[in-house]
Amino acid sequence: MGCPRRLLLVSNSTMHGGGYLGHCQQHIQSFLGEKVKRVLFVPYALHDRDAYARTAREKFASLGYELDSIHESCDPVEAVRKSEAIFIGGGNTFRLLKALYDNRLIQEIRKRVLEDGIPYMGSSAGTNVATVSINTTNDMPIVYPPSLQALGLVPFNINPHYLDPDVKSTHMGGLREGAMLLVEGNKATLQGVTGARLFLSCCAVTDYSTEFDCPFTKATFKFSKENENKKFAEVWHFVVYHL
Amino acid sequence: MGCPRRLLLVSNSTMHGGGYLGHCQQHIQSFLGEKVKRVLFVPYALHDRDAYARTAREKFASLGYELDSIHESCDPVEAVRKSEAIFIGGGNTFRLLKALYDNRLIQEIRKRVLEDGIPYMGSSAGTNVATVSINTTNDMPIVYPPSLQALGLVPFNINPHYLDPDVKSTHMGGLREGAMLLVEGNKATLQGVTGARLFLSCCAVTDYSTEFDCPFTKATFKFSKENENKKFAEVWHFVVYHL
Repeated sequence: MGCPRRLLLVSNSTMHGGGYLGHCQQHIQSFLGEKVKRVLFVPYALHDRDAYARTAREKFASLGYELDSIHESCDPVEAVRKSEAIFIGGGNTFRLLKALYDNRLIQEIRKRVLEDGIPYMGSSAGTNVATVSINTTNDMPIVYPPSLQALGLVPFNINPHYLDPDVKSTHMGGLREGAMLLVEGNKATLQGVTGARLFLSCCAVTDYSTEFDCPFTKATFKFSKENENKKFAEVWHFVVYHL
Repeated sequence: MGCPRRLLLVSNSTMHGGGYLGHCQQHIQSFLGEKVKRVLFVPYALHDRDAYARTAREKFASLGYELDSIHESCDPVEAVRKSEAIFIGGGNTFRLLKALYDNRLIQEIRKRVLEDGIPYMGSSAGTNVATVSINTTNDMPIVYPPSLQALGLVPFNINPHYLDPDVKSTHMGGLREGAMLLVEGNKATLQGVTGARLFLSCCAVTDYSTEFDCPFTKATFKFSKENENKKFAEVWHFVVYHL
């Protein structure tokens, strides 16, 4: 029996002209299904956690799910322990990762997702922290987390909001539909319509259109010990982009 | 008698259509003058230090200066101790800052610039590390330095390559002349033709054209202890931009 993990990793939470998570709401419903009733929301990536939780709660209510925000819990680890599903929202990746460490949530989230198989959904920074490390974030280091190693729920890194350097972009952002990655066990499927680019060990680059099967069944989890960033080049870099 | 520091902080090392440091070569000569004969180059921000040193050596030779690269010295701290002038080149800011810590150069460079008054020139990442911290870098965190606190040669932060969010940019980069900041004692003068934007304590934003005197004589050096990033919001954020 393999790893029971199930993840939906979204590149961006808002598309031009659409509301919060509007572009991926059908994917969310399909991903969470009918068995999940309550979702645990992690708003740490933004400064105003109350406002962020209100926005997320409203959206998830419209999709038929109750939402608990972890910042309203007096025991965040216990909140993870009891959760049916986890959604980590976007914002600043450094702020988010630091808060995950400060609240001692790394191991508990790993256990719930990798051992217990509860669904994990991430958007932008929440997608970044699901990977091996945040070495590929575009965010500003506004705070200093105790490590760049992240949750390691998948054996590669992701750079959300990827902009293809060869394409003349208007730099307006969010005009195209965003990409997302559905991970089930050892299989990853690209969703959305913009495609992705895969970097392998800093050498080969392969472009994929949507609905391919990510070939990472060959990969094994390679966790660096804290601060051993030299191993970064050995892990797989997976880049999900929207233009 | 005030602080004898002299710094030339350049936003970017290469402009579209020009060679390495071509857009600021007159400023460099004017800054270093005729008393300086040898410049100590710090190539840590790029992976290929030999190639980087060759490029810099060639450019400085054309301007009339010998160049020693610190990576060719068996005792980097001693190299700083003996230097007449320091130039730290651009590249990845995280890689650069980590190497400065790994080689135990932070205190020695501070002493040479702030106490002994030797000229310090930085470009891009080399400008970033001259400031209070690298919290405002745009670079990817490809390695994990022991702190985000930098050399603290000036009492504010700089974001090189600043792109004005209100201006429709073609995102081509480097088409306009870059900005640079000349710091002499407690006075900073903006040079180049693109102007700068000053952020004060995360509230007021003021745009400056060139050749103004930066009003930071009111500022005092506020050094955070390592990891005390909450003080970040209290320092002055100075943004030098090129479009």
